[in-house]
Amino acid sequence: MKVGIVGANGYSGVELIRLLINHPFAELETVISNSTSGEEIQTLYPHLSAVFERRLEDFNADELAEHVDAVFFATPAGVSKDLLPECLKRGLLCIDLSGDFRLKDPAAYESWYHRSPADEDLLQRAVYGLSEINREQIKAAARIIANPGCYPTATLLGLLPAVKRGAINTRSLVIDGKSGASGAGRKASIANLFCGINENVQAYKLGAHQHTPEIEQAIQAVSGNEERVTFTTHLIPMTRGLMCTIYADLTEDLSTEEWIAYYEHFYKDSPFVRIRKAGTWPSTKEVLGSNYCDIGLNVDGRTRPDYRFSDRQCG
Amino acid sequence: MKVGIVGANGYSGVELIRLLINHPFAELETVISNSTSGEEIQTLYPHLSAVFERRLEDFNADELAEHVDAVFFATPAGVSKDLLPECLKRGLLCIDLSGDFRLKDPAAYESWYHRSPADEDLLQRAVYGLSEINREQIKAAARIIANPGCYPTATLLGLLPAVKRGAINTRSLVIDGKSGASGAGRKASIANLFCGINENVQAYKLGAHQHTPEIEQAIQAVSGNEERVTFTTHLIPMTRGLMCTIYADLTEDLSTEEWIAYYEHFYKDSPFVRIRKAGTWPSTKEVLGSNYCDIGLNVDGRTRPDYRFSDRQCG
Amino acid sequence: MKVGIVGANGYSGVELIRLLINHPFAELETVISNSTSGEEIQTLYPHLSAVFERRLEDFNADELAEHVDAVFFATPAGVSKDLLPECLKRGLLCIDLSGDFRLKDPAAYESWYHRSPADEDLLQRAVYGLSEINREQIKAAARIIANPGCYPTATLLGLLPAVKRGAINTRSLVIDGKSGASGAGRKASIANLFCGINENVQAYKLGAHQHTPEIEQAIQAVSGNEERVTFTTHLIPMTRGLMCTIYADLTEDLSTEEWIAYYEHFYKDSPFVRIRKAGTWPSTKEVLGSNYCDIGLNVDGRTRPDYRFSDRQCG
Amino acid sequence: MKVGIVGANGYSGVELIRLLINHPFAELETVISNSTSGEEIQTLYPHLSAVFERRLEDFNADELAEHVDAVFFATPAGVSKDLLPECLKRGLLCIDLSGDFRLKDPAAYESWYHRSPADEDLLQRAVYGLSEINREQIKAAARIIANPGCYPTATLLGLLPAVKRGAINTRSLVIDGKSGASGAGRKASIANLFCGINENVQAYKLGAHQHTPEIEQAIQAVSGNEERVTFTTHLIPMTRGLMCTIYADLTEDLSTEEWIAYYEHFYKDSPFVRIRKAGTWPSTKEVLGSNYCDIGLNVDGRTRPDYRFSDRQCG
Repeated sequence: MKVGIVGANGYSGVELIRLLINHPFAELETVISNSTSGEEIQTLYPHLSAVFERRLEDFNADELAEHVDAVFFATPAGVSKDLLPECLKRGLLCIDLSGDFRLKDPAAYESWYHRSPADEDLLQRAVYGLSEINREQIKAAARIIANPGCYPTATLLGLLPAVKRGAINTRSLVIDGKSGASGAGRKASIANLFCGINENVQAYKLGAHQHTPEIEQAIQAVSGNEERVTFTTHLIPMTRGLMCTIYADLTEDLSTEEWIAYYEHFYKDSPFVRIRKAGTWPSTKEVLGSNYCDIGLNVDGRTRPDYRFSDRQCG
Repeated sequence: MKVGIVGANGYSGVELIRLLINHPFAELETVISNSTSGEEIQTLYPHLSAVFERRLEDFNADELAEHVDAVFFATPAGVSKDLLPECLKRGLLCIDLSGDFRLKDPAAYESWYHRSPADEDLLQRAVYGLSEINREQIKAAARIIANPGCYPTATLLGLLPAVKRGAINTRSLVIDGKSGASGAGRKASIANLFCGINENVQAYKLGAHQHTPEIEQAIQAVSGNEERVTFTTHLIPMTRGLMCTIYADLTEDLSTEEWIAYYEHFYKDSPFVRIRKAGTWPSTKEVLGSNYCDIGLNVDGRTRPDYRFSDRQCG
Repeated sequence: MKVGIVGANGYSGVELIRLLINHPFAELETVISNSTSGEEIQTLYPHLSAVFERRLEDFNADELAEHVDAVFFATPAGVSKDLLPECLKRGLLCIDLSGDFRLKDPAAYESWYHRSPADEDLLQRAVYGLSEINREQIKAAARIIANPGCYPTATLLGLLPAVKRGAINTRSLVIDGKSGASGAGRKASIANLFCGINENVQAYKLGAHQHTPEIEQAIQAVSGNEERVTFTTHLIPMTRGLMCTIYADLTEDLSTEEWIAYYEHFYKDSPFVRIRKAGTWPSTKEVLGSNYCDIGLNVDGRTRPDYRFSDRQCG
Repeated sequence: MKVGIVGANGYSGVELIRLLINHPFAELETVISNSTSGEEIQTLYPHLSAVFERRLEDFNADELAEHVDAVFFATPAGVSKDLLPECLKRGLLCIDLSGDFRLKDPAAYESWYHRSPADEDLLQRAVYGLSEINREQIKAAARIIANPGCYPTATLLGLLPAVKRGAINTRSLVIDGKSGASGAGRKASIANLFCGINENVQAYKLGAHQHTPEIEQAIQAVSGNEERVTFTTHLIPMTRGLMCTIYADLTEDLSTEEWIAYYEHFYKDSPFVRIRKAGTWPSTKEVLGSNYCDIGLNVDGRTRPDYRFSDRQCG
């Protein structure tokens, strides 16, 4: 399958290059970046010298359609909602790594992203690309795949098996997220400077993180109820990696070992999810640079809630 | 006041040296370390050259009593319970930075610290040295001051005002702690190596951290009820600093601004507690090396719980 | 002495605030920043809350002259050359932390800084503020003090005693500098982002660093000869701290111990320079946040050159 | 080719596992560690779960000979000199990553490593495994391959082309090494703790690093003269990566561009050496986790010496 990347000069774009040039079924044909078109990607990222050398092109849907079968959008919020429809029209499979096509409700997008949303019809057609959960839907006939955000991926892989089982009270959920700095993207801002992030832990965007409705929508899709979660994010002094610590009240009396057995069974066909042995816990470095999401589970016998962990590296 | 430090060659001991040699009312007379006695502290810690040069002595209660009025124990768990009584007998004011005298219940110490506890009578006489809460008791006639642990300090400063007011449901408490590596002390172990901690976030000691009963005991002292908290700890790739993110269900309908006003009033005579303005959140670097504990508060209007933050540097 | 800071919202400005509010002979009256005037410094830097709260003012030489005796310029290159003369005219003692008044030769400034230089007459009047070397000149009647750059401070304190003695061949000098990220200032640029600096060592500005002529000018002032040094700089993944490793061929047969004795004697009245014992070497963390510059010396008996180290923290 | 690793539980061993399980021509049959035999490698290193799961065995030359064709020694200094001969006797190809077989002169080993050397006859038979330089010798009939150290690899790839050409004065060489912490191995020692390495640059082992004679021996093999280099090492706050900045006086008048062209030609058949474009410099992160060694070159027109860089990641 021939593929292209729009937004190839950001952190997700460059990580995608790494994944695609080593992928057995993909051939990376073209890399696009309107902001740096004309430059060579290996000049911007010298680690790509002799590995993947290519000139960055301007976005042009017609040319894309000539050369590729599928296009990835590794663009900041608000870009793919305009460019993706052009590609879709020309028959391309569209995989969006940004948040533009994740929320079914355009009003939610507007209120959390502070931008005007994508076309509602397209939002409805988009499939949420959490492959461990939506594998069949994605395979079926998806033409727009809305890839999950970093926090939602970690949270949902850790949480959805319990929600599906109906074994936790979803009204009690607390999700405490810890992320490395690459999640903020390659943007020259004071908030992203080394000196402010190094040797520091910061809480940020309390009650206002745009991944909140994405998490709620996915839980709701399983539970059938309207859901509200307490989701808090922290910036950690490391480049890559993300851990979500999830706390919930149990409604079914299972031991830690029973939870682990259930999760192992749930993910038995998902090669990239690993369940930790009882009494051992994930650490982000153990999944660094891989596709793995490691999940640790623990029932705290002393208190009512159980808690469990989900840990996944994120671009 | 003439003072000495037992366990002066660890991280807390050396930090204590920094605080005491700059303190207007203290004169640091002697530094003690059985494991490195005979060595010069400035050889072990060259940053002390020309600043504080002194030979490390063996512990000897008689000699201590001759030279100092007060003694600090910056020793690992299990040491001060044996040495402190010797000093107490000789009339010294004893300030213990370890966990040996914090828990009133010897059985709790034994079960969480996996060691035999201090003499129960002394445990009862010890005053918990959280000065913002116990100022009067400490001043009164305390001869044994059990200094709070790092996580409990951050947690209790953030939590106790709300508990005192009876405005939260203490059965709903979730405390998510994030600590730098100095908290583990200067111990040559694989777990403390640079390569494992750098660029990594790790969950550890789930449901088993020895600061759990200390936090519960202090909440109980205020609420009057037996308390159980969900307390989880994470190791963050930085040397110093600690943040506890605390989640609780509200039982009183207060806005964020009202919470802030209440906390400001509560701490109006506590110069080292700072309450953040609404919509801004603590970061550990903003208190690095200082005595400050910064607290941010937020009521999440969308969900039931409020959450609040407490952030304090820790040796 | 009443003082003000121009450029108070950058990293050097904020560090200067820390030093001045604790300084026994200074009273910090006013903080100035044209780019953020009107804002509160404690809003930009919350660690200053309750410590030093002040509104940032616009630069106005008349008002400054009314309120202060001395003014510090913590401004980027090219700013103080215009503002400082205004203050000088009004009788203020001017201390410039930028590079604008360090080089006596305006052509050198122009060629290394790629900007138009300060007035040549003022350049001649400026005293190079390396107090360990120029103490008398500074005390005498200096009205313009050009504070040394970070690399030159470390290099010159390590090098000038040897040059003064005539014991090294100045034509053989190699200076290998390693700096933390704060040296680049608080500027929102891709080069300063956390993700590019963390877990990375980078060589930069080879043969083109603007501190080169400053180092050469100071060596020349002592040796009397025109000097050219090989000076290379590296960016290290840490916030603060700077180490220069200096290599030189010896022209006098001294042992390591004799070198150490000579340096100790040379700096016997300089409280902020510490000479390391033979066989031990500086590390930047040992001077972090202090005024100290630690110097280690070593004669390599196997090869011709000696090498020595100078290590100093830098804003 | 079936292979085994002795010392599989250290940092180099585990990195070797990563390289070998992805290698098209190798099949990793057995992992050996006397200190942790009986344990599962994926328990010690959970990132290997589901990737490479195997029980660590005790060293037994007979069993090894039954199952593998080649054996790697990723052991600390002083181990392979005893174990390797056993494997050699049984016909195995032996690749040693430690320093035991690198120095031809047993007296040099004894004096720099402070241990008794390997059998002199075996030392003579060992081929120095710097494949870019010794490719033919390695292919020919080598049965003992002594893999180069981390600093020597970076230094020699950067230096040997210039030495071969006779274009530098080898008596003027200064090599300034900067290494991440993994180079010290997975050893529980105070020197390797996170808190001492983080936010710090340290000079260490001045004039005493055991890689010095290895570098000198390799230069000598090319130049034919006895060589002495000034080699200084620094510990940098990062896990992986190593940069050597090399300074030399030129004896031939070449421009930077001519040097670059010469190096490109020299390494035209070495796929893992990349030469940087003029005016751009290596950074360790650009080779992180790869086999690449990036080299930047610069002639400083203002001074006599040229300097050049070599930068290579190191286990």
